Amino acid sequence: MTSLSFELQLEIIHVQAYDGLVLKQLKIEKELTTMSYVYANRGYSDALTGFGSKPALVVVDFQRGFTDSQFPMGGAPMVDQAVVSTVRVMRAAKSAGIPIIACVIAFDGRKSAPLWKIGPVLDLQAGTEETQLDPRIAAEGPDVVLSKTAPSLFFGTPAAAILTRERVDTVIVTGCITSGCIRATVVDAFSLGFRVQVAKDCCGDHDIVAHEQNLADVGRRYADIIDADRAIDAIDQWRSTNDRD
Amino acid sequence: MTSLSFELQLEIIHVQAYDGLVLKQLKIEKELTTMSYVYANRGYSDALTGFGSKPALVVVDFQRGFTDSQFPMGGAPMVDQAVVSTVRVMRAAKSAGIPIIACVIAFDGRKSAPLWKIGPVLDLQAGTEETQLDPRIAAEGPDVVLSKTAPSLFFGTPAAAILTRERVDTVIVTGCITSGCIRATVVDAFSLGFRVQVAKDCCGDHDIVAHEQNLADVGRRYADIIDADRAIDAIDQWRSTNDRD
Amino acid sequence: MTSLSFELQLEIIHVQAYDGLVLKQLKIEKELTTMSYVYANRGYSDALTGFGSKPALVVVDFQRGFTDSQFPMGGAPMVDQAVVSTVRVMRAAKSAGIPIIACVIAFDGRKSAPLWKIGPVLDLQAGTEETQLDPRIAAEGPDVVLSKTAPSLFFGTPAAAILTRERVDTVIVTGCITSGCIRATVVDAFSLGFRVQVAKDCCGDHDIVAHEQNLADVGRRYADIIDADRAIDAIDQWRSTNDRD
Amino acid sequence: MTSLSFELQLEIIHVQAYDGLVLKQLKIEKELTTMSYVYANRGYSDALTGFGSKPALVVVDFQRGFTDSQFPMGGAPMVDQAVVSTVRVMRAAKSAGIPIIACVIAFDGRKSAPLWKIGPVLDLQAGTEETQLDPRIAAEGPDVVLSKTAPSLFFGTPAAAILTRERVDTVIVTGCITSGCIRATVVDAFSLGFRVQVAKDCCGDHDIVAHEQNLADVGRRYADIIDADRAIDAIDQWRSTNDRD
Repeated sequence: MTSLSFELQLEIIHVQAYDGLVLKQLKIEKELTTMSYVYANRGYSDALTGFGSKPALVVVDFQRGFTDSQFPMGGAPMVDQAVVSTVRVMRAAKSAGIPIIACVIAFDGRKSAPLWKIGPVLDLQAGTEETQLDPRIAAEGPDVVLSKTAPSLFFGTPAAAILTRERVDTVIVTGCITSGCIRATVVDAFSLGFRVQVAKDCCGDHDIVAHEQNLADVGRRYADIIDADRAIDAIDQWRSTNDRD
Repeated sequence: MTSLSFELQLEIIHVQAYDGLVLKQLKIEKELTTMSYVYANRGYSDALTGFGSKPALVVVDFQRGFTDSQFPMGGAPMVDQAVVSTVRVMRAAKSAGIPIIACVIAFDGRKSAPLWKIGPVLDLQAGTEETQLDPRIAAEGPDVVLSKTAPSLFFGTPAAAILTRERVDTVIVTGCITSGCIRATVVDAFSLGFRVQVAKDCCGDHDIVAHEQNLADVGRRYADIIDADRAIDAIDQWRSTNDRD
Repeated sequence: MTSLSFELQLEIIHVQAYDGLVLKQLKIEKELTTMSYVYANRGYSDALTGFGSKPALVVVDFQRGFTDSQFPMGGAPMVDQAVVSTVRVMRAAKSAGIPIIACVIAFDGRKSAPLWKIGPVLDLQAGTEETQLDPRIAAEGPDVVLSKTAPSLFFGTPAAAILTRERVDTVIVTGCITSGCIRATVVDAFSLGFRVQVAKDCCGDHDIVAHEQNLADVGRRYADIIDADRAIDAIDQWRSTNDRD
Repeated sequence: MTSLSFELQLEIIHVQAYDGLVLKQLKIEKELTTMSYVYANRGYSDALTGFGSKPALVVVDFQRGFTDSQFPMGGAPMVDQAVVSTVRVMRAAKSAGIPIIACVIAFDGRKSAPLWKIGPVLDLQAGTEETQLDPRIAAEGPDVVLSKTAPSLFFGTPAAAILTRERVDTVIVTGCITSGCIRATVVDAFSLGFRVQVAKDCCGDHDIVAHEQNLADVGRRYADIIDADRAIDAIDQWRSTNDRD
């Protein structure tokens, strides 16, 4: 099912890893080629799940707290790029009439939040500027904007019910942060029975390695890793072959 | 809140990353020191969430399909080590009377599975040997053994209800695979409002880098990264100060 | 939207009601005609939701503990009749290729059960005869048989994910007990975004009044109340107009 | 476990029941005494579940759309009475420091609603007056106010996670409508592992028979049926024996 091939390399790599209770940069000696070989050898696959009969677009946490550099978590360059790419996909989706669900993290008081270790996340209180959609995303008019308290778009929200009512079977994932809320949303979308398509250039992170590692993790298990162009192609193809019900 | 410090290094690192639709080994040039600095700078923290008032132990997917080398996904050395360490924690938990929930992936027919890209996962049909608990884990007598279809212990199971009924507020996570079902279980336990403690030497993966990267991802957001010794200490401390209700 | 009309009646009715903490038979004086008039007047409606594009059949708790008179909760005449009618619908569904999900209540130990006030429910331990499907239901070969701990088919099970993967938008509900697990399953199916069709002669209860009252409750809010004949007609119609995907 | 006894009565009762597809008032001849006898005989019980170690108060849908008579569903006398009684319980809860979670039905656009058959429910769009808490409830300052789309407080909300984080094991239920959202909330609270206490005079319906029948349904299966006085007593008792954590 897979045809991964790698040149052999013995290498010292540096990763973030826990040394006792403390997160550090550590050196790990390993044969790099085994990094994905071990998974392919176990039956993990990058064979595509593909698009099904009806896609929806989800846009995760493109709120000012993450996109506006005036806020502590805001303004990562990869996130900004991802907003620009996502707007392109939103336009195709809007034009084709496929559902667009956006979400933001927003708490009604501190008691409603789980025990986030990221201090500034707890400041995402409903009604603050940090919980407003990025203006570029808001301008595209998502069909529904949901508030959530946890990493996944689907946790503690009616998102799955909305998609079920629309008979959606494929979820295109965009948003931020790849190694946090995107990862969680992908896992839930998969668990809920959807075909999952992650548009990688529509997802942003603070760190490229965490971004890539998480896409690799989900790409060999749960989801197809695509890009904005491919998402738009698939949406256009759906549009040309479907009368919307 | 954090005191991470790193020496500066400019480095070419090799990671698994998607090149178009294909997962490859890619070289990424980056300042390695920024790998976690960027997160600390954004407010991510390794300050500990800590243990609360009542812990439970969850043991994820230590089933023969993953622990027995006669099966395609079975027998990774890190997984085997993790079983041994988990048995130690199970004994402490059992002795202290804290709840132990184990789970296995097991499907009732192929229609009940989500769209796993890992072929051998779909062979984990209820009643097969691959869905039996590893004998070393079974011998410790977990209180409840749940079947699941998705990565997270909590998805499509009554696990959260069982913990709520027991008034548990802290979940110690063990099992496999770190970059798959452990990651998903940690995110759900966190989202559900629990304090999450991941015993890193009780979790196994096929690949050390994926293992470490996922612990780093969750350790700065959702969970404390501990080890078997610390889990046993915390359980013993709970035992000494509590009459069980 | 509704055209309910009733003749006026002043009446003393007898219902089960709590007098302090004790459930008693009480007399309630009321204008009977207002019983549903008040709801219609508030905008409640029996206008039909209708069948959508793809139905599934769910068969709730037709297990020997409820259908076999040798067990304390077993053998209510209305339940027995409902099994017979459900078998007819299962055959139509099987023949048409629409998914059939059955479930049973079954616990893995007493810790996995919520705090049921019905003593014999707690005896529905996995592996006992009470948790076996009624042989008439088993003989029809449901696609998936799920175990659950709570009233709703959807609680703590992957049922919704299975239906999402099959692109189902309409759920035909059968099983027992109408005023317990059927009611809960109907509410969840509705909340999850499905069109809900309750086949009233395929649902059984110990008491006709509780049965009817619960159908009335859900029929004016969440679901269409149909019967086996209408379910079979709808299934046949779906079969004639669809190539299955 | 139960000692229900009834005098024998042969009676013609009138209930709302479906005659074909149409909801009508029908006469049903039955021995009234068997109404609950059949359940007691099957092991159903009104033995009390009781209060556990830490209660929370939930206040369901006391929003102007249901409490203000200017709106189509608003102003049922029983609902108004229930608001008054609930305020008393809220004051006790606030004073004791137990968590109070309120919720309202509020949709972000019509696509986010399930297929409600009650027309005016679909008008409960976020931002409208109908979705504001009743001023008497708002004045008591619930800790968290959640928006929901479905009958149950717990569906598509983080309510369970909030209660888990607070180590709550007992849920006191108040609100409206008894035969709709209260019923659904009770079933979910039970399924989630909580002890459930329904304060009957704090719950309102449009119709007394539906109110009583639903309390009877849940009281013999899932919940204790109490009243405001008993809820306040239990809260005061908790307050006197606990230092809040």
